[in-house]
Amino acid sequence: MAPTFVSQLFNSIADTGRELLDLRGGKKRGSGIKEICRDLLTQKGEASGMALAREAVEAWNSLNDDEKLDFLVYLNKEMAPDQKKIEAAVTAYHKEGNAENYQTLSEAIEAPRQELMRRINFAPGGTAAIVAMRKFLVRHLRANPELKAVDSDLQHLLSSWFNRGFLTLERIDWRTPAVVLEKLIEYEAVHEIDGWEDLRRRLDKDRRCFAFFHPALPDEPLIFVEVALVKGLASAIPPLLSRDTERGDPTKADTAIFYSISNCQDGLKGISFGNFLIKQVVAELSAELPNLKHFATLSPIPGFMKWLTGVNGAVAGMHFKDVNAVRKAIADPDWLNNPETVDEVQEPLEKLCAHYLINEKRGTQPIDPVTRFHLGNGARLEQLNWMGDNSPNGLAQSAGLLVNYYYSLKDIEKNHEAYANERKVVASSALHSLAKNGKK
Amino acid sequence: MAPTFVSQLFNSIADTGRELLDLRGGKKRGSGIKEICRDLLTQKGEASGMALAREAVEAWNSLNDDEKLDFLVYLNKEMAPDQKKIEAAVTAYHKEGNAENYQTLSEAIEAPRQELMRRINFAPGGTAAIVAMRKFLVRHLRANPELKAVDSDLQHLLSSWFNRGFLTLERIDWRTPAVVLEKLIEYEAVHEIDGWEDLRRRLDKDRRCFAFFHPALPDEPLIFVEVALVKGLASAIPPLLSRDTERGDPTKADTAIFYSISNCQDGLKGISFGNFLIKQVVAELSAELPNLKHFATLSPIPGFMKWLTGVNGAVAGMHFKDVNAVRKAIADPDWLNNPETVDEVQEPLEKLCAHYLINEKRGTQPIDPVTRFHLGNGARLEQLNWMGDNSPNGLAQSAGLLVNYYYSLKDIEKNHEAYANERKVVASSALHSLAKNGKK
Amino acid sequence: MAPTFVSQLFNSIADTGRELLDLRGGKKRGSGIKEICRDLLTQKGEASGMALAREAVEAWNSLNDDEKLDFLVYLNKEMAPDQKKIEAAVTAYHKEGNAENYQTLSEAIEAPRQELMRRINFAPGGTAAIVAMRKFLVRHLRANPELKAVDSDLQHLLSSWFNRGFLTLERIDWRTPAVVLEKLIEYEAVHEIDGWEDLRRRLDKDRRCFAFFHPALPDEPLIFVEVALVKGLASAIPPLLSRDTERGDPTKADTAIFYSISNCQDGLKGISFGNFLIKQVVAELSAELPNLKHFATLSPIPGFMKWLTGVNGAVAGMHFKDVNAVRKAIADPDWLNNPETVDEVQEPLEKLCAHYLINEKRGTQPIDPVTRFHLGNGARLEQLNWMGDNSPNGLAQSAGLLVNYYYSLKDIEKNHEAYANERKVVASSALHSLAKNGKK
Amino acid sequence: MAPTFVSQLFNSIADTGRELLDLRGGKKRGSGIKEICRDLLTQKGEASGMALAREAVEAWNSLNDDEKLDFLVYLNKEMAPDQKKIEAAVTAYHKEGNAENYQTLSEAIEAPRQELMRRINFAPGGTAAIVAMRKFLVRHLRANPELKAVDSDLQHLLSSWFNRGFLTLERIDWRTPAVVLEKLIEYEAVHEIDGWEDLRRRLDKDRRCFAFFHPALPDEPLIFVEVALVKGLASAIPPLLSRDTERGDPTKADTAIFYSISNCQDGLKGISFGNFLIKQVVAELSAELPNLKHFATLSPIPGFMKWLTGVNGAVAGMHFKDVNAVRKAIADPDWLNNPETVDEVQEPLEKLCAHYLINEKRGTQPIDPVTRFHLGNGARLEQLNWMGDNSPNGLAQSAGLLVNYYYSLKDIEKNHEAYANERKVVASSALHSLAKNGKK
Repeated sequence: MAPTFVSQLFNSIADTGRELLDLRGGKKRGSGIKEICRDLLTQKGEASGMALAREAVEAWNSLNDDEKLDFLVYLNKEMAPDQKKIEAAVTAYHKEGNAENYQTLSEAIEAPRQELMRRINFAPGGTAAIVAMRKFLVRHLRANPELKAVDSDLQHLLSSWFNRGFLTLERIDWRTPAVVLEKLIEYEAVHEIDGWEDLRRRLDKDRRCFAFFHPALPDEPLIFVEVALVKGLASAIPPLLSRDTERGDPTKADTAIFYSISNCQDGLKGISFGNFLIKQVVAELSAELPNLKHFATLSPIPGFMKWLTGVNGAVAGMHFKDVNAVRKAIADPDWLNNPETVDEVQEPLEKLCAHYLINEKRGTQPIDPVTRFHLGNGARLEQLNWMGDNSPNGLAQSAGLLVNYYYSLKDIEKNHEAYANERKVVASSALHSLAKNGKK
Repeated sequence: MAPTFVSQLFNSIADTGRELLDLRGGKKRGSGIKEICRDLLTQKGEASGMALAREAVEAWNSLNDDEKLDFLVYLNKEMAPDQKKIEAAVTAYHKEGNAENYQTLSEAIEAPRQELMRRINFAPGGTAAIVAMRKFLVRHLRANPELKAVDSDLQHLLSSWFNRGFLTLERIDWRTPAVVLEKLIEYEAVHEIDGWEDLRRRLDKDRRCFAFFHPALPDEPLIFVEVALVKGLASAIPPLLSRDTERGDPTKADTAIFYSISNCQDGLKGISFGNFLIKQVVAELSAELPNLKHFATLSPIPGFMKWLTGVNGAVAGMHFKDVNAVRKAIADPDWLNNPETVDEVQEPLEKLCAHYLINEKRGTQPIDPVTRFHLGNGARLEQLNWMGDNSPNGLAQSAGLLVNYYYSLKDIEKNHEAYANERKVVASSALHSLAKNGKK
Repeated sequence: MAPTFVSQLFNSIADTGRELLDLRGGKKRGSGIKEICRDLLTQKGEASGMALAREAVEAWNSLNDDEKLDFLVYLNKEMAPDQKKIEAAVTAYHKEGNAENYQTLSEAIEAPRQELMRRINFAPGGTAAIVAMRKFLVRHLRANPELKAVDSDLQHLLSSWFNRGFLTLERIDWRTPAVVLEKLIEYEAVHEIDGWEDLRRRLDKDRRCFAFFHPALPDEPLIFVEVALVKGLASAIPPLLSRDTERGDPTKADTAIFYSISNCQDGLKGISFGNFLIKQVVAELSAELPNLKHFATLSPIPGFMKWLTGVNGAVAGMHFKDVNAVRKAIADPDWLNNPETVDEVQEPLEKLCAHYLINEKRGTQPIDPVTRFHLGNGARLEQLNWMGDNSPNGLAQSAGLLVNYYYSLKDIEKNHEAYANERKVVASSALHSLAKNGKK
Repeated sequence: MAPTFVSQLFNSIADTGRELLDLRGGKKRGSGIKEICRDLLTQKGEASGMALAREAVEAWNSLNDDEKLDFLVYLNKEMAPDQKKIEAAVTAYHKEGNAENYQTLSEAIEAPRQELMRRINFAPGGTAAIVAMRKFLVRHLRANPELKAVDSDLQHLLSSWFNRGFLTLERIDWRTPAVVLEKLIEYEAVHEIDGWEDLRRRLDKDRRCFAFFHPALPDEPLIFVEVALVKGLASAIPPLLSRDTERGDPTKADTAIFYSISNCQDGLKGISFGNFLIKQVVAELSAELPNLKHFATLSPIPGFMKWLTGVNGAVAGMHFKDVNAVRKAIADPDWLNNPETVDEVQEPLEKLCAHYLINEKRGTQPIDPVTRFHLGNGARLEQLNWMGDNSPNGLAQSAGLLVNYYYSLKDIEKNHEAYANERKVVASSALHSLAKNGKK
């Protein structure tokens, strides 16, 4: 088949459709995305569906930010469900909760914008346009809270479409098309990738990278994880990222370190893939390299410094005075270059951090978002790593501390259950000791 | 990547999950699909989602018919939306139609079985299992009309998942995997395929076959169309199907005849692909073979004989007496072998059939379902073909008559509009003449 | 890319070339393959190479058998090396064996038909045409022994092109394109495949099929092997081929039985792939199914009956009288239905067959061609199977006997060495006993 | 299939073979590539062929330069044909030129190193190793002219294996795997590619890049061409390479400019692909973009300045004095920045260059290698471009001049014939005028 030609022809069919419709109404239809969408939705039958959907996608792509916002407001106001219909349907359903009335109610409650999105999706590039629409919406939601309903609808739809069952896990390496590789450089959210040579090191023979893809977005990773195959639990980032470290033999490695996980699509915010990704990658790696015995992350502790500098009262069994001394010591931007200071703060910082990870809660769950994510997946808090990331970002987030979360195949379910049901924070005894150290 | 190994490992992860859960509750969980589904839905977090989904799929596949029906009844009763919640949500929404209340209402109205299906879909084979579930349900709906609500929910979900934007059009030929080709033999619904040699003729160089596929069902065509590349409008089926006809040169053909369109998935009943398929195939063929100038079907008239034998009163300008004579003549099962009879009935039958196609309505639309489909797509009724299909089935359906629907690229939109808005039956002047012939 | 269009354009470039050449010489060039080939070879530069090669392929394909033979005679006489040049080159080389003279001699000795074939190969379908040419030649060689030199050249060239390093091993299953599957039905040489249903059983989950392919003949298997995954050494063919036997679980099988190996291309006669195929398939299966512990064939003994009915004198320690009694007993076409006869002949037949396999030689090697092949590969004679193949063919070849050759990964090299250097026939002690039984 | 596992297993089979062989001889075989090669060649049968071939490849890859040279000397001396056998074979062939004697002679003349290479090719990576071997040899041939015979053999073999019929043309774009793209950066020989961003511009929507690949070297382009889709004949390189030029619409372009062609494999020196490549790319582009009407190169004139600075006597109708003035003017490295000089030398330089291209010969052919290549392909000299390439390299080669060779589909064959038979230099009348301008 010859996609180029076909799409050209389709364009011409679409154009024919458009012209006819233009003539018919004696008005300029291309002028407004709202009009296109109205037609797309009300058009009896589906004869012009593909053509109109294509126009809608093109129209969206050509809008400026103000126009985009205006269109979202339109979706919110004009493509909302009809309240009268809802009430009538509820009354009927209340009288008799039969299938027909349930059906009527379901239809009444569903906002027309949902069906609109399904029809926009007919067009090539339709899914990408809808994801882009949501991305724009997410970015403007705080300033336009009234658009929350539109956001709910889009999230609901995308969540259904991006169901795990429709995703494929693909290995990313140096044989991957450049169009995908450049997305990794763009989307990497934890440890920045500094150009193609840097990327290449992360895809070398002692590294692995996996991503989820959706068939409708073949060049767009949804989420990806970077893995280093090493011996023993890795405790610091720089040796993993350096282009100069010796390339290891993957068949000799015993540990897979997940050192970076990045969500790629802001338009899919709130739709979670990470849990599935980690577990399936563990399965892939186990199959490829039976020598691997351990699976763990080397993770940032994004909220530690923020918490520490805001803390009040005694924590981790320490007097406020001691905590304060630490805070003061590391307030000096140059503290890392002062061996005495380093010597002085290492132990208390480790204790404070262990305490932060294990004991500090928001509601019933750990305060640190990364901790919540991995414990929710069934991992356990394993080991704190002093100076695991001495980059400016690492120092700012967590005084350079990193932590390993350990995924034990045989304990994943048990840990998850304990966390899900009892909010139990599963951690190594060493970390528990650190956290409660000195506590009375 | 090595899918075999991975899925084995996943099985073992799933098994681990299952055992742990079994132990935990001290009860046999594998015993019942309902229990699995309940857990799948209520499980906090998603740690066991994949494992439970896999179990649910396996459990469904192992049920007998009674158990399947019982499970559907369970979905209807126990996985229905909570009426109290609905009413509370409506009350709130009535008071203030804000985003939050809309969200609450949306969630209340959605039956839990929808989310259940989304989670079952996590498993490999999940989509196939849900399509199979719906297929079973569709077959038992008449006897179990109370399951209509479940059917609505499944159709709604599948309709969203099998959106045109997620389908791929693929050409089917002798290079297609056997696992797909055997499905054509199984699913062909118009002109039965009598084994592999018969199939091969239909995929020869002067034939084309195209199908829509969904990424989650890679070996399952959703709908397929068979096309003959010929010179001039084909008027009879036997020459198209015969294995002995000379193979034409596709680059010399001027006409593409769509002689068979078959829906393959009963589980996707009510979700329409045919309209999209025909138009995209026209585009593909135009691109591949610029010599093609005409695109038309050679279609059955499934309801003609049923209508004719049930007709009363004068039609097509004929006296009841004349109609009756025709009906009587062809009541003889051997009428085709009597040249005098044939000579006698041909003209009146053609007139009656043209009248049937153009003038007979159910509501505002043509009574014949094939006519409704093609007119709805923007085609026009073109030509009646005497003895186009003299197979027993062809004789029983339409006294051997076939009809061509003509797809004119430049008129598709106009025809569709005329049909959609005014229910105008677009037909050639020859057919119009036949239909009104003799009318006063 | 769009191959169809491109090849059309290429055709037109080729046509342009042809016309110009036709005009130039004022003669009809298309008329004769010889003329095309002469031009293809002498044409300065390569401007028309592709066009002429295409013409040569088309010309060959349109020849009848007499014309083909005539063309081969032409290759033999007119495209032979120039004897005078050879002698001059030898004289020079004799005087001084330097690089230049070696080069001149090499060029002189190479028949121009070799370069001709390399240029014919430029065309799409060129390789296939040359393989077809050799196939035709092989079939007519006995009647035309003077063509031996042409055959040597073709074999030499094809042997270089079909080097093992250029072949790919591919698994054949029900997902393989029909165009390849139908070749299996056509080429199967040991146990005929009776249509698609029969084929399907041989590709079921407890069977494997692998073939070598060459990139220039993507739809043409060169050689394929059929494997049954079973428990224990299979001793009879019917249970392996029956469509009704239960499908086994491949992950529970401990033995892979290679029950059929077929060469597909007569045009590649004398170029051996079997040895490589078996060893690589053993490697593939070991990787896929670690449960497999044994790899063996279930093989025909094609020369046994021919040898037995022609034998004279005492063999396997038996008196001529006894041998003769056996021969007489099984001369009755119905002997298999007479239990007494069966009882009587089984033991002596097994002894005779073991003797035939182990002791009977042509020169220094076993007389049976299948034995020579497998021993040459490093297998060992393992077990005789009474009534392993009671089909008419099996009875005619070997009185229904089959034999297992066993491939022991750790002994392959040792066995091969013993056979290659000392012509040692490696066999199980049981077979050795049978063979020498009664011998004094 | 799971290639990783399989190759591991193969390694272990190979290792088994190696150990056995080692034990057998009581000597260290891995120590020397010569011994491995001798075994590979003399080994009766093929049982250890794959294992030995793999060893040979590994051994070659581990040699240092001195050892490589030593191995090539070994191939030259010890793997040469046996002169006595040659003479005996010639004597016999002289007596009777029959097939058998021809066969014997053919075998005698073929150096054993040819069969050795065919067996080394059994191994994965074998073809790559042989190409690397030839690359090394080519680089050392001048210093070691006695290796010419080995080079002839390797070239002969590789020429047969890399026959046009086995190559595939592939489009290179941003969807191509990075492992191939980085080769473009490495191999580009005409206009250096300065990193990934530079490459990306050359693969943008108004550019095309095509390469030939061989199935045994899937990640290695053999030759590639870069094409710009523009309006009108491009006359300068900088606008084509600049990352800032506006991206054109390829469907609006009327001209395809081949602005860079690079051979990639030094190991395939003397095996020509360029002619085939250009013609097939013209075909591809014509099919994809029917709007393209003109196909031309924008080519360097690598020998112009060398010729000009060495020239003596009157050329292009100019007096030696005038020529000398030009030479003197542009000897100033800064001449380009002096408008007067530029004004003064442009016309005479253009005349001299046209003369150089059209009239200056080496033997009967044009002196410029690029001219010989394109005229040999059937192109015509079209247009000289002043300051087409003002890079240091462009100034050094040709005082910044570039030339277009024009490929006219309908004239290619005719031009080629004229050049091949009569050495006619086909050029536009403008260029002819320039070249003979002033000539008396």
